[in-house]
Amino acid sequence: MDIEFKTISEFQAGKRVDGFFIVKKVECKVSSNNKKYLDFTLGDKTGEINSKLWNITDEDEKFNINTLVKVRGIVTEWQNALQFKIERIREVIEEDGVDIADFIPVAPFPAEVMYSEIMKYLSKIKNEDIKNIVEYILDDCGEALMYYPAAKSNHHAVRGGLLYHTTTMLKSAEKLCEIYDFLNTDLLYGGIILHDVAKMEEMASSELGIVSEYTIEGQLLGHIVMGVKKVEMAAEKVGADSEIKMLLEHMILAHHYEPEYGSPKKPMIPEAEMLHRLDDLDAKMYDMRKAVQDIEPGQMSDRIWSLDKRTVYKPLKEI
Amino acid sequence: MDIEFKTISEFQAGKRVDGFFIVKKVECKVSSNNKKYLDFTLGDKTGEINSKLWNITDEDEKFNINTLVKVRGIVTEWQNALQFKIERIREVIEEDGVDIADFIPVAPFPAEVMYSEIMKYLSKIKNEDIKNIVEYILDDCGEALMYYPAAKSNHHAVRGGLLYHTTTMLKSAEKLCEIYDFLNTDLLYGGIILHDVAKMEEMASSELGIVSEYTIEGQLLGHIVMGVKKVEMAAEKVGADSEIKMLLEHMILAHHYEPEYGSPKKPMIPEAEMLHRLDDLDAKMYDMRKAVQDIEPGQMSDRIWSLDKRTVYKPLKEI
Amino acid sequence: MDIEFKTISEFQAGKRVDGFFIVKKVECKVSSNNKKYLDFTLGDKTGEINSKLWNITDEDEKFNINTLVKVRGIVTEWQNALQFKIERIREVIEEDGVDIADFIPVAPFPAEVMYSEIMKYLSKIKNEDIKNIVEYILDDCGEALMYYPAAKSNHHAVRGGLLYHTTTMLKSAEKLCEIYDFLNTDLLYGGIILHDVAKMEEMASSELGIVSEYTIEGQLLGHIVMGVKKVEMAAEKVGADSEIKMLLEHMILAHHYEPEYGSPKKPMIPEAEMLHRLDDLDAKMYDMRKAVQDIEPGQMSDRIWSLDKRTVYKPLKEI
Amino acid sequence: MDIEFKTISEFQAGKRVDGFFIVKKVECKVSSNNKKYLDFTLGDKTGEINSKLWNITDEDEKFNINTLVKVRGIVTEWQNALQFKIERIREVIEEDGVDIADFIPVAPFPAEVMYSEIMKYLSKIKNEDIKNIVEYILDDCGEALMYYPAAKSNHHAVRGGLLYHTTTMLKSAEKLCEIYDFLNTDLLYGGIILHDVAKMEEMASSELGIVSEYTIEGQLLGHIVMGVKKVEMAAEKVGADSEIKMLLEHMILAHHYEPEYGSPKKPMIPEAEMLHRLDDLDAKMYDMRKAVQDIEPGQMSDRIWSLDKRTVYKPLKEI
Amino acid sequence: MDIEFKTISEFQAGKRVDGFFIVKKVECKVSSNNKKYLDFTLGDKTGEINSKLWNITDEDEKFNINTLVKVRGIVTEWQNALQFKIERIREVIEEDGVDIADFIPVAPFPAEVMYSEIMKYLSKIKNEDIKNIVEYILDDCGEALMYYPAAKSNHHAVRGGLLYHTTTMLKSAEKLCEIYDFLNTDLLYGGIILHDVAKMEEMASSELGIVSEYTIEGQLLGHIVMGVKKVEMAAEKVGADSEIKMLLEHMILAHHYEPEYGSPKKPMIPEAEMLHRLDDLDAKMYDMRKAVQDIEPGQMSDRIWSLDKRTVYKPLKEI
Amino acid sequence: MDIEFKTISEFQAGKRVDGFFIVKKVECKVSSNNKKYLDFTLGDKTGEINSKLWNITDEDEKFNINTLVKVRGIVTEWQNALQFKIERIREVIEEDGVDIADFIPVAPFPAEVMYSEIMKYLSKIKNEDIKNIVEYILDDCGEALMYYPAAKSNHHAVRGGLLYHTTTMLKSAEKLCEIYDFLNTDLLYGGIILHDVAKMEEMASSELGIVSEYTIEGQLLGHIVMGVKKVEMAAEKVGADSEIKMLLEHMILAHHYEPEYGSPKKPMIPEAEMLHRLDDLDAKMYDMRKAVQDIEPGQMSDRIWSLDKRTVYKPLKEI
Repeated sequence: MDIEFKTISEFQAGKRVDGFFIVKKVECKVSSNNKKYLDFTLGDKTGEINSKLWNITDEDEKFNINTLVKVRGIVTEWQNALQFKIERIREVIEEDGVDIADFIPVAPFPAEVMYSEIMKYLSKIKNEDIKNIVEYILDDCGEALMYYPAAKSNHHAVRGGLLYHTTTMLKSAEKLCEIYDFLNTDLLYGGIILHDVAKMEEMASSELGIVSEYTIEGQLLGHIVMGVKKVEMAAEKVGADSEIKMLLEHMILAHHYEPEYGSPKKPMIPEAEMLHRLDDLDAKMYDMRKAVQDIEPGQMSDRIWSLDKRTVYKPLKEI
Repeated sequence: MDIEFKTISEFQAGKRVDGFFIVKKVECKVSSNNKKYLDFTLGDKTGEINSKLWNITDEDEKFNINTLVKVRGIVTEWQNALQFKIERIREVIEEDGVDIADFIPVAPFPAEVMYSEIMKYLSKIKNEDIKNIVEYILDDCGEALMYYPAAKSNHHAVRGGLLYHTTTMLKSAEKLCEIYDFLNTDLLYGGIILHDVAKMEEMASSELGIVSEYTIEGQLLGHIVMGVKKVEMAAEKVGADSEIKMLLEHMILAHHYEPEYGSPKKPMIPEAEMLHRLDDLDAKMYDMRKAVQDIEPGQMSDRIWSLDKRTVYKPLKEI
Repeated sequence: MDIEFKTISEFQAGKRVDGFFIVKKVECKVSSNNKKYLDFTLGDKTGEINSKLWNITDEDEKFNINTLVKVRGIVTEWQNALQFKIERIREVIEEDGVDIADFIPVAPFPAEVMYSEIMKYLSKIKNEDIKNIVEYILDDCGEALMYYPAAKSNHHAVRGGLLYHTTTMLKSAEKLCEIYDFLNTDLLYGGIILHDVAKMEEMASSELGIVSEYTIEGQLLGHIVMGVKKVEMAAEKVGADSEIKMLLEHMILAHHYEPEYGSPKKPMIPEAEMLHRLDDLDAKMYDMRKAVQDIEPGQMSDRIWSLDKRTVYKPLKEI
Repeated sequence: MDIEFKTISEFQAGKRVDGFFIVKKVECKVSSNNKKYLDFTLGDKTGEINSKLWNITDEDEKFNINTLVKVRGIVTEWQNALQFKIERIREVIEEDGVDIADFIPVAPFPAEVMYSEIMKYLSKIKNEDIKNIVEYILDDCGEALMYYPAAKSNHHAVRGGLLYHTTTMLKSAEKLCEIYDFLNTDLLYGGIILHDVAKMEEMASSELGIVSEYTIEGQLLGHIVMGVKKVEMAAEKVGADSEIKMLLEHMILAHHYEPEYGSPKKPMIPEAEMLHRLDDLDAKMYDMRKAVQDIEPGQMSDRIWSLDKRTVYKPLKEI
Repeated sequence: MDIEFKTISEFQAGKRVDGFFIVKKVECKVSSNNKKYLDFTLGDKTGEINSKLWNITDEDEKFNINTLVKVRGIVTEWQNALQFKIERIREVIEEDGVDIADFIPVAPFPAEVMYSEIMKYLSKIKNEDIKNIVEYILDDCGEALMYYPAAKSNHHAVRGGLLYHTTTMLKSAEKLCEIYDFLNTDLLYGGIILHDVAKMEEMASSELGIVSEYTIEGQLLGHIVMGVKKVEMAAEKVGADSEIKMLLEHMILAHHYEPEYGSPKKPMIPEAEMLHRLDDLDAKMYDMRKAVQDIEPGQMSDRIWSLDKRTVYKPLKEI
Repeated sequence: MDIEFKTISEFQAGKRVDGFFIVKKVECKVSSNNKKYLDFTLGDKTGEINSKLWNITDEDEKFNINTLVKVRGIVTEWQNALQFKIERIREVIEEDGVDIADFIPVAPFPAEVMYSEIMKYLSKIKNEDIKNIVEYILDDCGEALMYYPAAKSNHHAVRGGLLYHTTTMLKSAEKLCEIYDFLNTDLLYGGIILHDVAKMEEMASSELGIVSEYTIEGQLLGHIVMGVKKVEMAAEKVGADSEIKMLLEHMILAHHYEPEYGSPKKPMIPEAEMLHRLDDLDAKMYDMRKAVQDIEPGQMSDRIWSLDKRTVYKPLKEI
């Protein structure tokens, strides 16, 4: 008997199928005959399905939500709905050759390309202290940088979103510094690369770039103050000048501008002002683009929370 | 006797001098011997001096404040202060070859250069309706565009400030549209050129680019609504498409973003969002640059009203 | 067989009935045998019923929501609910003699009476420019004025509500001008008649006075700015004095008082102040009266959104 | 020697004059020869003058500020300014026949006329409990009602201003109740008469209607809560129905509408809503009228604090 | 046949049971055979059950919600759910020996203990006027003081919560007055005892300490103003000094501090400031303690409305 | 000739005097004969006087503002005012036996007493990590702790004010923890000692406890974030548990509660809530006590900025 790879929308009761899915939820339960089983919600781009792995033992593999799994099983029907009885399940491995972008929203550029873009701007920083601090902190981030999103649910909440957000800001910074040429590009590039870096410790993300929750430290301190602490520690390690350290800390501290959004100080140097504006601009352009993509010409969108509850209009005729 | 051209700081009692000055104040008064005279405050970059033109008649020339005059007279002393007794006075004419920039703050580029910059962007607009509306309104502005400041006392409150503000925004727009390439440049260039154009009717400015007051219509309606009315009228004259007209009106209406700053609607198209941000960015960069220019390394500036009452810091060591 | 006129609450399965109903919803669908049909929700004061017009062709009449129709058909039962199979359906015509007030909330006075009330106040305006501007704009409104409500869901959201709101304000204005006799009644009457006139283009209303949505222009510009544009255009057409034009525009612009409610300028002439207050007073009295009508003596109402989330009390004993 | 009655602007050094003045300030001081004297500032409509009553004894009459006095004395000159040496001074008595309106701003109607207006509306109240409570409190006010202003420095800060404010509101109430005829006039008239009555204990006013300061109780409790306490006490004395009492208390409590202006509860009955609006309307119309009276056609006024810092415009041409 | 006392979770269809329950809801309805019956929701700590008392007559006992009843009946099953057919029902009497704390949340100290605590602090008040006013008002409260909660749903919304809140504040006051020894303990103790006393008339509570609703007077005036009125009346009855009365009234009036929370005046004496802070502190500590009790170590709570929508964290390891 | 120690109010022209004064201002100027001199403003509790030290050389001692000096010189008179010609001047040394409290406002307890109070509470901390972090940071503070005020101009702006504020809070904490016994005293004592410790780097204070200005770091980061950084560094040095570190950082971060007062996070553990409240309480009690000390019975104070612009009342009769 041939077992076919199916997407969830193709499932039919009675068929045995193979497939790759995301673990959306997983819980260990006890059945009526007093045996333990795992109760999954599996999903792909076409839908979600309740799935059971019966009669597990304590030695059975643990599964984390928001990871990719390869599964074989039989589609059944129970109370008018399809259900999936799992026969085999394991985490996806590299050899499976699965393209993550088929399962989740991802940034429009490969992580490697964006990462080397950041390296390019890092190499443009001439001030040794700034460069050292930034390098120290980037080294410390490790792999996470390659997949972290920039948010849990707002703008850039996609796999690689943090890299995407950062590189777009760096490009805009470079261009605007040609016009506002009194700005110091070393400070600005350094500030941009570091401004959200502590989000990787504020939020807990799976390798799919999906954030399930904020960490305790993220809730008690927030990524802005956590970022300041990172610079403080890095500056001590690399022996940086104390004013340079202070300026980078100030830029991170002030990048949300408003106290009620987490910045106890507002920008007091021009580069901090520009950093804040590039950050906000990129967020809003991301949301605006998404809003007009989702509607037809001549239509208004629904109210969009992250755009100040505004609706967005797409002109009827192409201009 | 040789009469020398002097600046006010060079005045000495008893000397007869020639000079070019700005009329800061002028009032018609009656002297103790019941004759009418003009009581001036004349100024240049070096200071101000009280000046009298005695025994005038009703036929005598009228002088407006914030204009340049050529004056000859004698420096006197009265109650421990220097005073200037005017013998001859007339408005400056082109042949005098006076450089206005020696008397008042001016934009860093000549008006003609900035004007042709605007023409360059106008020529890039491909949509005929947008181009026609913008042209109709620019034609209507006449000479005033060449000298109007962009504000009475805030950012770009210099001769030619309106042109300077507009052209800088156009340049930034062009660069950022390379990054945010879903934006329509026709709409954005059109909106930028028109967004503050009604300031020329909201404020009364002398040809020196100094605003003495807001007009009545400026106070009762404001330049935002006045700008919308201009587009309405221009669109009728050039027979423009009604959606194009509406979009340009919306961009002008929304460009201050906050209702309490005069915008009853917030941006609902991406180009209006970008217009607002470029406008605000250019204002803040102007004020930030000015703030750091005015202080020494290692110093904090005074609180700056237009920067949200912030102080600005200039790093101690060059980075 | 006799066919009786029935209200929806009187429907019984198996009966053939005639009736007058409002089209609440209508959608063109395709049946399982691949024929097109219209799926209606019909309603009257007693309820709503799902109704089908089977096997339509492209030539069949189009029906708009929020219009009155005359229908004949058979009541059926499907899945435990009554359904209505339409045999004949057409828009109501004048000869049907249907009283709209039996189907929808209407203003307490006939449109014609309220309209002639407005004409009476128009005739009291002595200033020719004001009178001409108001007349020009009223002429331009056409029939819509006779049925438009003053709002989508708040105060005066009834058929003829705009006329009702306007005439009540005119009456209050006349009385209060006896007490505050320094007010100019020409300006005030003119301002009252025009203040909400652009609501007819801000909202899309059926002839029943039910607003289904805001227009695109209504959302991008709002009735306040649209009203100002109307005066600008009218003043040009009738060749009105520019100050008169400016004052009327200011009154419209300022009539919501608060920037966050759409007025970028607050009232700066006494008549604009009074206009704002009469507008607000009439809205609040409308809602207060409605609130106490809906509750028993000794009771508090629910929280009422348009009354600042207040509850309203009706005294236990008549005073 | 003839002694003439003079106004202060007519004073000339060396003349002996009689006059009626207001005591603006008075302080007991000790002269260089160690004698006590009274140092006055006396004023009338034409100006103010420093005045001395030398060598007083402890038995000498006490003078209160903001009272009228009859004075005889000699005008002297001291350090380039006129001074007034008082020879005789006493409080004005009725026989002097002085018209207070010559010295201070007063309401446009005589106190007696306004008082009988209030009595007229009191007699229109049919509900015995309301009438009894209002009468009890009015009786308790005594003479003060005849001269109290309605404020220290805002609207109706004139002699008799409280009566003027109250009667104007009663007239407007009567007219608007013809239009909004579901309102209970008994409650509304009662509420209007009582709403500011505790201002007579919140502020300390001289008989000239000039408030020198707020009382301690006025500062710690405020006239709104003090008014509620008055109704509580009056209701007990006259044995009024508890709901009637509660409604009147609520109307007083809610009449400033906003918590930050002193009303812990917002209006919850229509009559309380109307009371608040009539109160606010009368204040704003008073200030608007005053603002336009003080400027020329075509002019903008200064910013007026009590009008929300607005400027007011007076049209250039009569309409 | 033995009838057992059961909790609702122990109910089984077909059994006859006895029990003590709270009346959560009760409504008089008419059955299909046209007889009147009472439809109850009965509850205890283990759950709730729909219950019927069939065929009642007008003479039958009335039952109030939020009271305790003793019931006998039969458990039945209807549409897959248990129902309770009541045979006998009466209000609980003292002889039943039921402990209220088994049914509802109660303060951690017996009412009598807390009451005598208040008496202890009352006896510490040396100023006769303060003591007399407080005593007069406490006497007037009667039994209600023994069971009233301090709120409908926020902090101290438990039986005896008002006593608990008041006594905790008194203890904190005593301790802090040792540190801030310039505070007058007479005023402070008096103010604390009286500050919320009018809550007993603002909210309608059953003897179980459960508030079903706010009274009309509570909604129209609020417990703060009602408390001020109580002091006014008490002071007249006991003939207290007018300043003492005013200070107590001010303390009550100011105890919520913010106008939008009901205080038209902010504290202007140190004792009023301390009263406000003790009140707020006790509320917040109550909610904080409750929040951490309800979560596990290492967890964040849900957002808590009364704590400014904050989440609360319980440290992972004991410190 | 005897030279007497004089206060400034005792100065008489022509006398030679000795004295101890504070340097309020000092500036190096050049006299008309082109010699350098120091221009001082010297002060004591009785007043201030302009003073000159003529003909100084570059080797002359430098003087800092807000330090105590011993001075000998001659009182002169110049332009109707006294002036002081300095003959000898040096910084005060310990042997002078000057009591600082005679010159400036100081805390009511000696620094040593308050310091040992802090040590007492430190010794009560049982958790080793908390104790180590606090000790590490206190050691790092050095001498400054003995004289620093707690503010530049608000509450506790006196010599030793930081110690005074901290010890008072510790005492209140101890007492309230008896009542709210679920609070962890280790965390609370630790948080209190550390909460303002970075003020010593945020503000530049002389040894007299007078703050002349905020430091650059103080302005760019603020004492709250600087305090968090201190804990981060201390925790690394002493190898503290990461949760303990995080909790202390959170307590410091949240201690101003409101974002606009510098706290990006609000308290999320009960101890942080209590810390904030004790901090605020102590500040307000300090200001309240000061306000009533400065006025007479029966009087209202001026508006006090730090008390939310309130006025404070002192009862007329002692209670």
